[in-house]
Amino acid sequence: MSVAAASPVIILVRPQMAENIGMAARAMANFGLAELRLVAPRDGWPPADTGPKGMTQAAAGATGVLDAISVHDRLEEAVGDLHYLFATTARERGQAKPVHLPEEGMALAAGRLAAGQRVGILFGPERTGLENDEIAIADSVLTFPVDPAFSSLNLAQAVLLVSYEWTRARGGATAPFALPADSAPAKRETVLSFFALLDVELERAGFFQGARAPVMKRNFRNIIHKMEPTEQDIRTLRGAVQALIRGGRGRPGGATKAPSRSGEEG
Amino acid sequence: MSVAAASPVIILVRPQMAENIGMAARAMANFGLAELRLVAPRDGWPPADTGPKGMTQAAAGATGVLDAISVHDRLEEAVGDLHYLFATTARERGQAKPVHLPEEGMALAAGRLAAGQRVGILFGPERTGLENDEIAIADSVLTFPVDPAFSSLNLAQAVLLVSYEWTRARGGATAPFALPADSAPAKRETVLSFFALLDVELERAGFFQGARAPVMKRNFRNIIHKMEPTEQDIRTLRGAVQALIRGGRGRPGGATKAPSRSGEEG
Repeated sequence: MSVAAASPVIILVRPQMAENIGMAARAMANFGLAELRLVAPRDGWPPADTGPKGMTQAAAGATGVLDAISVHDRLEEAVGDLHYLFATTARERGQAKPVHLPEEGMALAAGRLAAGQRVGILFGPERTGLENDEIAIADSVLTFPVDPAFSSLNLAQAVLLVSYEWTRARGGATAPFALPADSAPAKRETVLSFFALLDVELERAGFFQGARAPVMKRNFRNIIHKMEPTEQDIRTLRGAVQALIRGGRGRPGGATKAPSRSGEEG
Repeated sequence: MSVAAASPVIILVRPQMAENIGMAARAMANFGLAELRLVAPRDGWPPADTGPKGMTQAAAGATGVLDAISVHDRLEEAVGDLHYLFATTARERGQAKPVHLPEEGMALAAGRLAAGQRVGILFGPERTGLENDEIAIADSVLTFPVDPAFSSLNLAQAVLLVSYEWTRARGGATAPFALPADSAPAKRETVLSFFALLDVELERAGFFQGARAPVMKRNFRNIIHKMEPTEQDIRTLRGAVQALIRGGRGRPGGATKAPSRSGEEG
């Protein structure tokens, strides 16, 4: 089964704005969905598609999704080959159907898709949402955990949230990158050697005062450990400490001892 | 602490398009975020804000967020009062920082906000994203589990995903409605009484044939139970069965017995 066949089908019912069709296609491509169907787009098909609010510009290069769009006169035609249908709604519609949030709904979709079923998700027109008779042919309702005081979610934003949760449900939610590989913590001997340098140099500079000296040394150790330093971090800090000492030697009252081994700033 | 103070601050650095500022404000309002800061918006401030791609139209009524926008010349000014900063990036930037997906990052944010810290999230310009020096002042990197083959996420879409995960992290991800309250399953006596009607009427109509009759009766029971019927569902089905019987009586070869008690379609 191809990736496309194993992903949910997004069905925009009577979409009004070409820009939203393009933005929905872009959101789908961001999260690996491939199949977009339109039912009776308000401005006909193909769209005029010019200017900054045109479909193609809004799709920002999601041409794979755009090229595969199918357009249908009636909702029944657009869903005939599907086994399970969600209807998205922003508010209670008084229909006796299970109600799912996107995470739960897409987990359910992933199970059905894995079993070889085809799953579709219906989105209504921008202004009005799906009609009750359109919701009635769906198996369940999908809704969004929006602030009740401002629940008007843009059509493409709704498609994005469903697409994002689909990627999470299929186990595809991994960061495209991680901490650089050379970010392992410094070996403890590196850190301890740096503490030894600090102790000697700060002692020489008169930083540690009397009875508080042991506490101050522990504080210094804790400050450094909080940053979980890498080998490179310690090399950088060691170099900075030695540079400060060298810089101080040139000033009135500065130390006059020979410079330590220079830092290995990489 | 007010709701606003306890939510993350969204900071758009050098945003290019007024429409995206408006769409970001709308996405924030959808999920209960209140504080939007702008650093050096490309087209100045206030925006020309006319036409279909204006900020106000794109905000679709999120005036609370728009009215509270603060505008800053420099990033440092915009983040001075915050304790923890995320930098959003779409790709590896070679910086030795922890990398979080939105869910994990917003869980971390929720913990810090609950402890009284203020948290900000930096978003870069549409075309280029944040500069490396801007990322360097953040505590960690936030990225999105996009398809590597099409990773260009719209600015307002990125704000939406973070806002959505913030709502989930703060425990606010509840559906605005559920199944209607009268959707409790039918009492078993209601269902059994319906099965008794079906058995009698289908027997009388010659539907149950010979040795397969017990299997067919069990199948019928299982079909009905799969729909987890409510009291109303059973009343509707009972009414439909009785209507079919009445309708049949008027046809050639139809039954001639007296009508059963009529269905209680509500």
